[in-house]
Amino acid sequence: VIDIDQWSITRAVELANARGQDSRIVHVVNALVRHLHDFAREVRLTEQEWFEGVRFLTQVGHITDERRQEFILLSDTLGLSTLVTAQNHSKPTGCTEATVFGPFYVEGSPQYLNGEDIANGAQGEPCFVSGMVRGHDGRVIVGAEISVWQSDSEGYYDVQRPEIDRHQARGVVHSLPDGRYHFKSLLAAPYRIPHDGPVGRMLEALGRHPWRPAHLHFMIKAEGFETLITHIFREGDLYLESDAVFGVRSSLVTHWVRHEPGRTPDGKTSDEAFYTLQYDFVLDRSTKE
Amino acid sequence: VIDIDQWSITRAVELANARGQDSRIVHVVNALVRHLHDFAREVRLTEQEWFEGVRFLTQVGHITDERRQEFILLSDTLGLSTLVTAQNHSKPTGCTEATVFGPFYVEGSPQYLNGEDIANGAQGEPCFVSGMVRGHDGRVIVGAEISVWQSDSEGYYDVQRPEIDRHQARGVVHSLPDGRYHFKSLLAAPYRIPHDGPVGRMLEALGRHPWRPAHLHFMIKAEGFETLITHIFREGDLYLESDAVFGVRSSLVTHWVRHEPGRTPDGKTSDEAFYTLQYDFVLDRSTKE
Repeated sequence: VIDIDQWSITRAVELANARGQDSRIVHVVNALVRHLHDFAREVRLTEQEWFEGVRFLTQVGHITDERRQEFILLSDTLGLSTLVTAQNHSKPTGCTEATVFGPFYVEGSPQYLNGEDIANGAQGEPCFVSGMVRGHDGRVIVGAEISVWQSDSEGYYDVQRPEIDRHQARGVVHSLPDGRYHFKSLLAAPYRIPHDGPVGRMLEALGRHPWRPAHLHFMIKAEGFETLITHIFREGDLYLESDAVFGVRSSLVTHWVRHEPGRTPDGKTSDEAFYTLQYDFVLDRSTKE
Repeated sequence: VIDIDQWSITRAVELANARGQDSRIVHVVNALVRHLHDFAREVRLTEQEWFEGVRFLTQVGHITDERRQEFILLSDTLGLSTLVTAQNHSKPTGCTEATVFGPFYVEGSPQYLNGEDIANGAQGEPCFVSGMVRGHDGRVIVGAEISVWQSDSEGYYDVQRPEIDRHQARGVVHSLPDGRYHFKSLLAAPYRIPHDGPVGRMLEALGRHPWRPAHLHFMIKAEGFETLITHIFREGDLYLESDAVFGVRSSLVTHWVRHEPGRTPDGKTSDEAFYTLQYDFVLDRSTKE
C-alpha cells in the first residue's frame, strides 16, 4: 500500500486492519475510519483545522482527571451520549425512560437507610424524595439498589468543590419490602456544565449556553432487571427546552412541591420552606439470561 | 428540543448550533456530528463500547505531553493524516510530493551551516545528504529554510531518549546561492512508532505492526512557495509496503548508497563505511498572495 491519495486511503486502512482477531473491534474501527474520512473529505478539512482538532483533543485529555471527565462532556454536548442511550434502551411503554449518565457519578458513594439525609452538609432548601420501584408487570421490587447524585443549591456537585473532602448530595439506598424508597436531600438547581475548559470554549464558538435544567440523577439496579440510568427533572425549569446535553424526556419531568415551614414527611418540623418530590420507577426485565 | 431519540438527536444538535457566529466552525462541527452519529447508529454502538471509547481517548490524552503527541499518532495510524495531507497538496506533476508531518518535529531546532554534522553525537553510520531546492519552473531557490529530523541508528528520535538533553539528528540549514544544500548526519533506521501506549494497544487489537520504513523528515520553507512537508525513504526497506502510518509515496523513495571506508564528500577520510543520499526538492508556487 503505497502512493495512497485522499480516496484510496480508506480502503488501505481497512486492508491493514484485516488481520485483527476480534471481528467486532475490526468492524467498529473500520466503520469509524470510513465515517471519519467521509467527514474530512466532505468539509475538505484543512491542515490548520486538523491541527486545531489535535490541540482541542489534547486539551480535553489534559483537563480530564479523577474529578472531571471532559470527554464525557464532549460526547454529551455533541449528542452522542443521548444517541447511544436511546438506541440501547428501547423499552416497552410504561417503563421509565433512560437518559444520559453524565460525568458526575462517583464509585463507592455512601450507603444510607431510607429516610436519612443524603445532603450530608451540602447547603440548600430541604427536599424530601420518595416513590416506588416496580417491574413492568406492576410487582414491587424489593432491595433494588438506588444510587442518587445531584447538585447543591448553587448548582455544584461535591466533586466540583475542591474544599470538600466527603460525599455530599449523593448516596445509595435500597427499596423497602413494599418497594418504597425515601430520603431527605436538598433542592437541586439548574447549573452550567463545567465550561471553563475546551468544551465550554466549543459551546461558546457554537453560540450555545452551558445550562442544564435542575435534576436528580438515578441509577437503579435490581437482579433480573435492566439497570436504569436516568434523571428526574423539575417542571417549569427555564432550561427544559434547551438542555446543553439533550437529556430531557417529558416523562421524566415532575412537579416538585413547595411547602411552607411546618411538619415534614419525616415527622419533624422545619422552620424553613421545604420541597417534596415523588417519582415511581418502572424497570424493564433484563434481556440477559 | 425534548423527547429526542437516536434519530432526531442529529437534527437537534444542528439546531442548537445554529447561532454560532463563525459559519465555518458551525459547518465543520455539524458535519462531524452527522458522521459521528451515522457511525454510532450503523454499528449500533453499545454503552460498554462508548465507555471503552471514552477510556481510550482519556488514555491518549494522558500519555500526551511536550515530548509525545499520541493524538497525532492516532490520526496517523487511522489514515486521517494522509487524507488531510493529500487533499491539501494536490501539486502539479514534477513537484515533490508531500507526506505526513508525524509527531516528532520540535520547534527551535539548531541552525547549522551546510556541511556541518547535525547528528550532534547521536550514534550510527555516517550519512551525507545533499541535493538542490528548485521551483517548479526549474529555477534554483536560494536561502530556503530546510528543517530535517530523523531517527538514530536504533530507530529513536532524541525526544524519545529521556537521558538526552540536547537536539540530536535534527536541525535547520539554508540552501546556498546555487540552490544546493548538504549536511552530514547518520543512517536513519526503520522504527516502531511509540507502541507502549493506547495507540500501540489499538494496533495490536487490529493485528497490525507498528513499524515505519527508514526515512528522513523534511520541512522546506521559502518565500513565495508552498511549504513542503515530506519524507525521503530508503529503497529496499522492509516496511515500504506496510508503513504503519501510510506515509510512503514511490516518488519519495531513493537509493541510499553505501561506501567502503575512505574519502567522504566533506573531503575527510572515514575509517568506517558510510552512506550518501541525494534528493532534489521541487517546490510549488504559493497560491497565497
